[in-house]
Order: sequence, then structure tokens, then C-alpha cells
Amino acid sequence: MYEKQLLLIPGPTMVPPRVLRAMAVPPVGHRSQKFSQVVREVSQNLKKVFQTERDVYILTASGTGAMEAAVTNFINPGDKVLVLVNGKFGDRFAKINARIGAEVIRKDFELGKSADPELVKEILTEDKGQEIKAVFVQQNETATGILNNIKAIKEAMGNHPALLIVDSISGMAVADFPVDEWGADVVIAGSQKAFMLPPGLAFITLSEKAWKVNETCKNYNYYFDLKAAKKNLAQDTTPYTPATSLILGLQESLNILLEEGLENIYKKQQMFKEIVREAVQALGLELVVKDEKAASPAITAVKVPEGLVWKDLNKLMLTNFNVEIAGGQDELKGKIFRIGHIGYVQDMDLLTAIAALEMALFQLGFVKDLGRGVRVCQEVILRYKGETK
Amino acid sequence: MYEKQLLLIPGPTMVPPRVLRAMAVPPVGHRSQKFSQVVREVSQNLKKVFQTERDVYILTASGTGAMEAAVTNFINPGDKVLVLVNGKFGDRFAKINARIGAEVIRKDFELGKSADPELVKEILTEDKGQEIKAVFVQQNETATGILNNIKAIKEAMGNHPALLIVDSISGMAVADFPVDEWGADVVIAGSQKAFMLPPGLAFITLSEKAWKVNETCKNYNYYFDLKAAKKNLAQDTTPYTPATSLILGLQESLNILLEEGLENIYKKQQMFKEIVREAVQALGLELVVKDEKAASPAITAVKVPEGLVWKDLNKLMLTNFNVEIAGGQDELKGKIFRIGHIGYVQDMDLLTAIAALEMALFQLGFVKDLGRGVRVCQEVILRYKGETK
Repeated sequence: MYEKQLLLIPGPTMVPPRVLRAMAVPPVGHRSQKFSQVVREVSQNLKKVFQTERDVYILTASGTGAMEAAVTNFINPGDKVLVLVNGKFGDRFAKINARIGAEVIRKDFELGKSADPELVKEILTEDKGQEIKAVFVQQNETATGILNNIKAIKEAMGNHPALLIVDSISGMAVADFPVDEWGADVVIAGSQKAFMLPPGLAFITLSEKAWKVNETCKNYNYYFDLKAAKKNLAQDTTPYTPATSLILGLQESLNILLEEGLENIYKKQQMFKEIVREAVQALGLELVVKDEKAASPAITAVKVPEGLVWKDLNKLMLTNFNVEIAGGQDELKGKIFRIGHIGYVQDMDLLTAIAALEMALFQLGFVKDLGRGVRVCQEVILRYKGETK
Repeated sequence: MYEKQLLLIPGPTMVPPRVLRAMAVPPVGHRSQKFSQVVREVSQNLKKVFQTERDVYILTASGTGAMEAAVTNFINPGDKVLVLVNGKFGDRFAKINARIGAEVIRKDFELGKSADPELVKEILTEDKGQEIKAVFVQQNETATGILNNIKAIKEAMGNHPALLIVDSISGMAVADFPVDEWGADVVIAGSQKAFMLPPGLAFITLSEKAWKVNETCKNYNYYFDLKAAKKNLAQDTTPYTPATSLILGLQESLNILLEEGLENIYKKQQMFKEIVREAVQALGLELVVKDEKAASPAITAVKVPEGLVWKDLNKLMLTNFNVEIAGGQDELKGKIFRIGHIGYVQDMDLLTAIAALEMALFQLGFVKDLGRGVRVCQEVILRYKGETK
């Protein structure tokens, strides 16, 4: 029953059959008129999801490739940057910046706390020479399940000229992010999260201000050169051969997202978050992110209780109940686990996952009575869906 | 009949239904045991195709991404490199090197001529200080249909310590290239050519000598850092989320390639080359590459005859006969066209394509009698397949 497996990791996420079918076709010439029409349609629809009037460029790469593009197209060696770190992916922004020789001011936030806009305000206010060229932050930190308040961070930046560069790889189409309205300068996203596609595509959009900074940037990077992306998108194409089958899938997944409607999606994701947060607490587990407002609607991080071995839990859930969730990464390995509720997921999937978690914890002796977690899922679902007439 | 279209461009190429089916499955967790098994199997089989004992790393990117990796992991700003140029992709190697501040000695060869090993010998012999750090060359130049003699180029390098860095994106699994035996230090390939996959994956392998050079390289590139690829492949995984569905397709396409056998594939590709070269000449057209030994077994470039408008030919072939071939790129636009005979192609497809070309040229008044080109295809096919009993 491999294909029935519930894949609830924070990406790659499950993919709708409609999208699988759209990709399972003989290839298209990437410079053909037919494919240009696809690029045109997809670009228009990406703009809707990003809530932007600006172009959104498609890169054939993992999210990390887009993170690199979001650094190398704007930052020169020696430039000063502020990197807000809530976990592994914030750390990655710091590493990519350091690698090209940027001077990184790194601010780590305590596990489970979102980035503090007040601190941003403080640092930028103290930067009298206005030397800080950009502020890097995750909208949604996949590693720890944090949702940062991008609107507040932008407001905290005041009139400081630094660019606001946001990794929304696991945030876009999960939590509301009106890119233009909030004034983010560079925003990236990835295919294997809320876009319900296999990994391999990433997206990036930039403001006029970001383009101006780009002009003064000695970008050593050839493959991720956004000038080439811009020039080519004007002709409905990409600089290099793109992952054509994934783009055909994207065409379909954008249709699905827009049919559902962004508002409905954000609401649904909020319900998912409540289902999982309330249910794991009912199972006696502790959330990593205490503050509900700072908690991600894409993924919930849970502390591994004293005495429980994550690998045992993971194995039981997988082999006995066909549900795959994710562990912690790097220094959080064995300390937290993460339940993804992003992509092609519905409420009943999460109920199933919680039931599996409950049974596995029961088998391991960490839960005494069955049914409590599942009942909480039912309660939250009915809170959203109302009572039957 | 869109899905019946003969796609005979030099990539993306057609994809076998077996591979399409392998990719059209619900996603797999990229850190799961199941997927690690796939990575292990695929890595072993890639080594067979590359005829190497070394690791072959999988990158989630177009071929151009792998070209960048083949530069930035070895070359520092200020390093001297020799770039042999037979067309657009040789030019791209020069550009990527220039971009990171390498001192590029660029040698362009006349349109239709392969890279001259004697010239390489001369340049390296004159390089008394042994300052040239690497020689860059395409095994198969996709833009002009040139097959370079990598073995001869390596021999011409003699005892000079420069690395031999070969773009075999459209050469691997088309023309024989025993990577270890010939002593190429860095070799790259791409998914959308002979590997019969959609675009989105690239492959790279390197020698011990290349690893030594890598150690002294201040590689600014994060996403294409091969040290991370090496460290992760040792654990049957990749540094960042890979294009999992394409890797599942690769697993199947490698099975197909190895079932067919490399020797049989090289022989088949030689037949394809002869079919197309002899047939287009029978149609009164002129080949770009006169010397049969320098002609690519993956793609044949043909001069657009005086008075013929490429776009008209292209359009007729597409709309009337459902066959897509490729034009020239950049300064060769309108001057040459290219017939791809790579990927999921059989001899009868090429016969069909030649028939379509013949009919289109007939409609445009460039061919007087029908049947000549097709008959030549039949003759070449029977030359390979023998007579019926």
C-alpha cells in the first residue's frame, strides 16, 4: 500500500492525481510556442498567488538554489547584512551570505520564538551609516515551525534603505503574504510545498528597488542570474532548459490553488494548525512554539518527551500505520519531531495521522487511553464545519 | 494528436512511457529509507553509464547548472583556463569562467570543425609555467553537432597538470566515453538528453586529481558545492531536496539503458547519424560538419539553403507532419537547423522525420521529386539490419 502512504513531512508534500497526470505526458520543446503559452499562463497565475504585480521567475532548482539567487543577485563581498535566524534555514541564509564574503550580523531567536521586529528596529536605527544592505528572514521556518510576522518586520525597518529578503518557501500559499502591499523586496518559494508539486522548481520575485540594487551587484553567479531570467521571461521563456514536466504540473497545481481561492486556503491551513496543535497537546505532548500567533500553519513542531526515542516512534508510525512524519534536523535531531500539514492534505488526513501517533505512543507506553487525540481532531473539524442540520 | 508528435530537437528529448509511469507516483520523502535505496541504485547505475569507478553526483538543475559546478568547484578568480569553443555551449563555458574572474584563453574552431588536439598540445607545451589550470571542452557540442575527440585531447595534454573538464551533456550514453580510461577529470551530463528524462537533473563526476584541486578552491557557490554532494552521497542522499520524481524516472531510464547495453546504444546512434547525414544530402542539403568523424551521433546540423526561410520550414513540418526539429541558436539563427537523434528515438522515427522534411521542402519548392530521402533512410537501415532471409 505504498502509494496510500500519508506523507506528512514539511516537503516534499503529497501531489494531487490531477498534477501527476499533467506531468505524465511526452515532453514539450522548451522553446516551442506551445510551451511559451504555458510559461505565460503560469507566470500570470504565480503573480496571483504571490499577490504581486511584479514578474515571478521560475528557477529549475531546489529551494536552496532560490535562496542562493536571493543572496548573490544583491549582495557583494564586504556588504553588511542582517540575518534573522529561527532555525536551519535562517542559518542557511547566513551561510550563503558568509560564503560570498558578506559581513553577516546574525540574530538567533530562542527555539520556538518568532523573529522580534523590535530588535530589527533597534539594529537598523543604530545603523546610522545605513550600511546594512538587506534583512534576510524566513516567513515560515520549516525547521522549527515558526511563522514570522513579515508585515511587522517591514514596518520595523521604517525608512532604512535595506532590502527585505524573504524566504517563503514553505510559507507561500499557506499564510497570507500580499508581497506588494507588505513591501517585501525579494520573495522566494518552492514547488514541493504548498504548490503540491514534486521538488525541482523554485520561484522568485523582486521589487523595483531590488532591481536597482541588482544593477550594482557584481553577481558571480551564472545559473541564478536574474537579469537573464528577466530578459527571457519577457519572451515567455527561461534562460536555460527548464524542468518542463514540473512546469506542466505547476500549470495544473496553480489552477487547483486558484479554484480553491487563497482566502479559503489560508483558512483551511489555520484549521490544520489548530487540529494538530490541540491534538498533540491532548496526547500530553509539548509544542515547540507556545505562542499560537508565532506558530506555522504549514508545519507543527513537537518536543520529543523525555524517555521517548524518536526513531522508534517514527518507525512504528511508518510500518504499522503507513504515516510518515519528520524528525528534527541537525542539533534538533531526536529532540523534536514535525508534522507537516501543507500541500495536498485534508483535515481527515490529519485526523488519521493523529490517530496513528496516538496508537504508536500507546504501543510505546507514552499514552494510556486511546481516542483522546482523535476526539480533539473531530472537535476542531466540527468547530470549522459547523453542526449537521 | 499532440502526444504523437515526433520531438527531434537536441533536448528535451522524448521520454519512454515506462519512465513517465515511474515518475507519475505519489512523492517519496527524500530522506526516507526507501528513497535512499533509490539513490544508491541510481548512483551505481550512473557509474556504469559513465564507465567510472568514481562517484557520480546528482544535481537538481539544468545542464547549465552542472557547467557552473564544473567551473566554480575548481577555478579561482585569476586562474588561467583554456576553453575550446565549437559553438554556443563552449561559449557558455568561457562566459562562466570569465564571470568568476578567471583569465580565459579561448580557442574558437571554425563552424563544422572539431577541436584540434594539436592546438591543445601547442598551447600547453608553450605554458612553461604550467599556469593553465584546466582545459574545458564539450564532448558533443549541441549547438553545431560536433563530436570532439576527448581521448585525443587528453593525450595531447601530455604531462601538463591541467584538469580536463568535459561537458558531455549531450554526449554521455550516445558516444563511447570511458571516463576513467580516457582520464577525464570532471565530466557532466544532463537528464534531458540520452537519459530520456524531462529536464531538471544533471550529473557530475570527478577524479581524485580534481578533488585535490577542489580543496584549494575558494568556491563561492553554495548550491553547487560538490563537497556537500560527496558528504551526502556517502549516506545515500543529497545535500538539498532533490527532484525526487525525476530521480524515480532516472531509476527506470537507467534500467532501460543498461538493458539495451552501452555498446548497442553507441552502434544504434551511429546508425542514426548515418541515416540523417545521408538522407539530408540526398535531399540536396549541405551538412554543417563535413568530416564524418567530427559529426555528432546525437544531433545533425544542416545548412539552411539559400532562399529558404527556416521558420517556414519549421512551421510546415510542425503543422502538416507533426515533427519538431530545432533551428540554430544566436548567430546561427536562420542559418542552420538541427535534427536531434537522441533519447527515446528509433530508426523509423528518423525515416518519418526525413519524409516530413522532404515533403516540406517539396511544398516550399526546394525538392523536385519525392521519395529520394526516404529511400536513403531505408537503405541505411537495411545496411545495419541486413536482408530478410
